Amino acid sequence: MLQGARALVFDVFGTVVDWRGTVLRELADLGLSEAERVSFAEEWRRVGYAGAIGRVRQGDLPWMLVDELHRRKLDELLPRYGLTRLSEAEIDHLNRVWHRLQPWPDAVEGLTLLRRRFVISPLSNGNFALLTNMAKHGGLPWDCILSAELFNAYKPDPATYLGATRLLGLEPSQVMMVAAHSNDLKAAAALGLPTAFVSRPLEWGAGTTPEAPPEPPPDYVATDFVDLARQLEAG
Amino acid sequence: MLQGARALVFDVFGTVVDWRGTVLRELADLGLSEAERVSFAEEWRRVGYAGAIGRVRQGDLPWMLVDELHRRKLDELLPRYGLTRLSEAEIDHLNRVWHRLQPWPDAVEGLTLLRRRFVISPLSNGNFALLTNMAKHGGLPWDCILSAELFNAYKPDPATYLGATRLLGLEPSQVMMVAAHSNDLKAAAALGLPTAFVSRPLEWGAGTTPEAPPEPPPDYVATDFVDLARQLEAG
Repeated sequence: MLQGARALVFDVFGTVVDWRGTVLRELADLGLSEAERVSFAEEWRRVGYAGAIGRVRQGDLPWMLVDELHRRKLDELLPRYGLTRLSEAEIDHLNRVWHRLQPWPDAVEGLTLLRRRFVISPLSNGNFALLTNMAKHGGLPWDCILSAELFNAYKPDPATYLGATRLLGLEPSQVMMVAAHSNDLKAAAALGLPTAFVSRPLEWGAGTTPEAPPEPPPDYVATDFVDLARQLEAG
Repeated sequence: MLQGARALVFDVFGTVVDWRGTVLRELADLGLSEAERVSFAEEWRRVGYAGAIGRVRQGDLPWMLVDELHRRKLDELLPRYGLTRLSEAEIDHLNRVWHRLQPWPDAVEGLTLLRRRFVISPLSNGNFALLTNMAKHGGLPWDCILSAELFNAYKPDPATYLGATRLLGLEPSQVMMVAAHSNDLKAAAALGLPTAFVSRPLEWGAGTTPEAPPEPPPDYVATDFVDLARQLEAG
């Protein structure tokens, strides 16, 4: 199937960037203990993002951008952690930490290699401005920005994957989905997209159980983006 | 107004790339005389693109991507110029000359300077894949790709400009429209976007009358993108 792949689209949070490490670092400025920072960051991610996306998909919440979902949860977390003296500008800045997430150490080098051979783009539930700002901040060399916002549909909704292939002017078989998460790859594979699993064992911190590749197996399994570039002969 | 500008969005055909020069060069391979090439290229552009966009905007044609509008006209032009022996693959390749348009000589350097200070993006009626492929082919260092296709509305429809500012997460006053065409800048200015006019006197060939800046005057008038970068202190 590689012969046909013209574009690679990437999950972003956890796959391209280290959301947990970045959020922990920025929370350190607010005077929380390490344990508080971990629980704050992980609840923000698990409930404020992933859980909220699920609620939007089920119709339990109206369509909202990820910036708004993040802010809803942040407004709930701040008083619980005693952070009641932040100004609106400071809260907005903290909410935009998701626009400043740091790439994994191999990401920019690997994407730069892959870009020689393929059109490369994020395909993320993050909103368009978030992904654009993140790329500029982290030096991610995308050819374009594809966001769930463009389709009013959050992954793993089929409309997101098929909307991306349509905008790229390609068939699903020509667009490879790259992710560290099995549910994302399974949804893409079910629509005919080739898939690559990249292991990110540190997404939830050291000592956690790394996510396994999906079943049935993806077309490629890579240790990082440089390894993926080597396997796809894009080096 | 410069203090507030965070992003620059660019008209593309004629402003960033030399459509006429590129199409003329590719037509040269087909055995047409110089006069035939000029009339072919200019009719393709004037009627097959600009005229057809107007017909879509008036409801006289259904919504169609620019790739499709270009192909409709190409299918009419080819037999008129005796080009009846091209294969489907050759016709498709020729139709995609609009994906391969060459940047004006200052464009990559100027955009690279402007990108240091601003988010930069095309804001073109060209379809998303066309703009993405053109950027990759010509080395245009966009931060993202904004196309009328994302809004199902062709410039100068207000929905295109306002859709772009919304996706960028910015107010109209924070997004400057850059174009070589007065009608584009007038429509943007009416919505509160700051504007920059860049002169492209060769768009329709040597010896033609260059388009004048709009009235009322735009916020900036530049001779090329490097000059614009200098004026915006992005160098």
